[in-house]
Amino acid sequence: MPRVIIVGGVAGGATTAAQLRRIDPDIDITIYEKGRDISYGNCGLPYHIGGEVKERDQLIAATPESFMERDIVVRTYHQVTGIDADKKKVQVKDILNDRTFDAEYDYLILSPGGAPRTIPALLDVPQAFVLHTLENLDEIKAHMHNKTIKHAVVVGGGYIGLEMVENLVHRDIDVTLVHRSENLYHPLEPDMSAFIVDELAAKGIDVKLNAEIVEVVGDTVTLSTGEEIDAQMIIAGIGITPRTDFLRNSNVVLNEAGYICVDQYGRTNYKDVYAVGDAIETSYQHLDHPVNVALAWGAHRMAYIISNHISGDKAARFEGLLGTNIIRFFDHDIATLGLQVSELDSYPHFVIDHKQKNKAGYMSDSVPIHVRLHVSKSDGKILRAAVVGTEGVDKRIDVLAAHIRLGGTAMDLANIEVAYSPPYSSPKSVLNMVGYKAIEKMKKLKE
Amino acid sequence: MPRVIIVGGVAGGATTAAQLRRIDPDIDITIYEKGRDISYGNCGLPYHIGGEVKERDQLIAATPESFMERDIVVRTYHQVTGIDADKKKVQVKDILNDRTFDAEYDYLILSPGGAPRTIPALLDVPQAFVLHTLENLDEIKAHMHNKTIKHAVVVGGGYIGLEMVENLVHRDIDVTLVHRSENLYHPLEPDMSAFIVDELAAKGIDVKLNAEIVEVVGDTVTLSTGEEIDAQMIIAGIGITPRTDFLRNSNVVLNEAGYICVDQYGRTNYKDVYAVGDAIETSYQHLDHPVNVALAWGAHRMAYIISNHISGDKAARFEGLLGTNIIRFFDHDIATLGLQVSELDSYPHFVIDHKQKNKAGYMSDSVPIHVRLHVSKSDGKILRAAVVGTEGVDKRIDVLAAHIRLGGTAMDLANIEVAYSPPYSSPKSVLNMVGYKAIEKMKKLKE
Repeated sequence: MPRVIIVGGVAGGATTAAQLRRIDPDIDITIYEKGRDISYGNCGLPYHIGGEVKERDQLIAATPESFMERDIVVRTYHQVTGIDADKKKVQVKDILNDRTFDAEYDYLILSPGGAPRTIPALLDVPQAFVLHTLENLDEIKAHMHNKTIKHAVVVGGGYIGLEMVENLVHRDIDVTLVHRSENLYHPLEPDMSAFIVDELAAKGIDVKLNAEIVEVVGDTVTLSTGEEIDAQMIIAGIGITPRTDFLRNSNVVLNEAGYICVDQYGRTNYKDVYAVGDAIETSYQHLDHPVNVALAWGAHRMAYIISNHISGDKAARFEGLLGTNIIRFFDHDIATLGLQVSELDSYPHFVIDHKQKNKAGYMSDSVPIHVRLHVSKSDGKILRAAVVGTEGVDKRIDVLAAHIRLGGTAMDLANIEVAYSPPYSSPKSVLNMVGYKAIEKMKKLKE
Repeated sequence: MPRVIIVGGVAGGATTAAQLRRIDPDIDITIYEKGRDISYGNCGLPYHIGGEVKERDQLIAATPESFMERDIVVRTYHQVTGIDADKKKVQVKDILNDRTFDAEYDYLILSPGGAPRTIPALLDVPQAFVLHTLENLDEIKAHMHNKTIKHAVVVGGGYIGLEMVENLVHRDIDVTLVHRSENLYHPLEPDMSAFIVDELAAKGIDVKLNAEIVEVVGDTVTLSTGEEIDAQMIIAGIGITPRTDFLRNSNVVLNEAGYICVDQYGRTNYKDVYAVGDAIETSYQHLDHPVNVALAWGAHRMAYIISNHISGDKAARFEGLLGTNIIRFFDHDIATLGLQVSELDSYPHFVIDHKQKNKAGYMSDSVPIHVRLHVSKSDGKILRAAVVGTEGVDKRIDVLAAHIRLGGTAMDLANIEVAYSPPYSSPKSVLNMVGYKAIEKMKKLKE
């Protein structure tokens, strides 16, 4: 019976284990997880703080015990510290017992995820946290229980930062958002993200742009601007780095940034070593261009592909990712897909910018949606899309994702027969109109 | 300068006229409209009665005067009573002056629309109305202004009927819905539409199934069941028939049901006679199977194609229709596309039935969505889709429309990289899961 070792038991690893077991009742599966927990919905962590997820345990999809019942061996507090892919074994550190041992595999699945970045000034600050794991959540909840939080600082205006701001406000905590550059939420082009500052102001949330924390003494947070802020809690959400140091001395190929390179079956350069989750490098789905996307959709898709591949079904292949993403920020929805703005330069393109009501304009609750496409001049391919609004943004980005995946161009958007009724769309929907604009633009380019 | 005559000035005709003028500032355009108004949003009429469309005039996209300013000649109360396509002229009846004349064209665009069906018992009943035109709306509003409406009867449980029920309830009018068969809203399969009866009951709305109006005397409505209902207003929404009698003696080809047959450019069998709107027969987009879809999306798309074609741009082609449609009924959204249930027999198929929360299940406001696909056994093509829920239905039907249009199969739905964040989806979205179920089903069929 083949032995499968899985490194990391959160999203990618746990899902692969569960799928493998579903396909094959007999295969030997062991998960080594360096932390306390496995298989929880870490995207949901901020929403438990805000109260939209009522019970903490709703975030837990599987426990070591429930996996054990399905004959999946789970070793928590066990960190894989090295691998020997030629000899097909891993080195495991049993953290609680401070011992190390080797374990042999027939198939190895790497799902180490990312490590949250920190800043030096927050090291050893007792009220400073990240929110990356269920353990982090429990620490934060305990801190909020034990201490009166009059004011909190959130560091970083990315998606974790914005979600934390919103959820702390839902808990009636005063928040200051500290962001080191001029523009919040870098997945969005600066002119489109400018509304976030207005939204923060409208909600009475203090924001410090072009600022960093340089020192924390007691409850006093000192910024690089010289300002001092009183804060009983600090939460940093400033991105992750792939947790792949343990692979540095192996022959598993990593890219320059440390992400694990995989093929369409999720295999590394070793045919029996797979990788899944936030620490892999893949390619854009619509372009021959490498990308890493630390989001759950790709992890779940790759888990399916790897588990099927190991079980002998080679039909499912990973198509790469568009990086489709969305966040809610109070009343707004913000979604993008495709290339980052910084990656667009090497692709000759034009821009379609379009604002239209989300439903028939005569409906009293209609609201505007703003769509911006970056479109390849040569063939009309949609290189990048950004959509912002207060209703119906998720619909438009998902339609774009389905459309681009099957080769649909910007012009072709005119042809999508959306469901029209006044509460949902105009007869020429937002995306149809974007398509018509692209057709006009292309005609002009050819003149 | 070519002369264009357009028969019918509502959705299809008015949109074609406006587009033609936009493309060509000089072309000669005349619209003959038998009614009082042109270019109003008739899908929005019910919502003005309910109050979601605040001002009646918001429903008007263009007036005869505004078209005249753009050098589009508009003749209202002018009915085209016959055409001679070989001699390229139409016979026009000037209704107000009771005279008839001929008009010659180089291009003729037929947009006659449909005539609302009636039932004999409602003929000459002063409080009985249909809601098909802006004139109808004005009549109904005048009636509601002049008479106290304690109780209204809506006839027909199709989309107009359901929209009218909801909008009258929003006006605090007691309503009885009379529907002649066992099942409401026939676009949906009976077991999926059963909830509508529960929803009516929950809102305290009386419904009479398997019933028809046989007589109205004063305010007393007598049903085929013998029941009597007191009603100060009766609104019938029981479908339309194509208004193509004026073509019966022409050589323009109609199908058996009286719909005008057109090609991918919107042309009839005469190369200079086009047709658009509710009275045309087209083909399903995904199947070689005729269909007529009396909805606005197709009319707007065809208006674009016809106006471009007349102007010399032959690039845009009508791809046929999926019949993507949606209605809101109180808190529910109901959407379908593709074949009618009654048309499925000739296509060997299997059914995927799937219920899943619209967003991460741990979010306290997550609600279920029900998706049912009818899938071709031979190739996995999605023949028909139905989606019901209280949130996010419009997103799923639009994604399906985009997906099917570009040849995506049911299995292929697993690959759509939707935007995931807990407020919007699960990492494996509703449609992804439908795809995974289809993959399993297909595997079993091949075993």
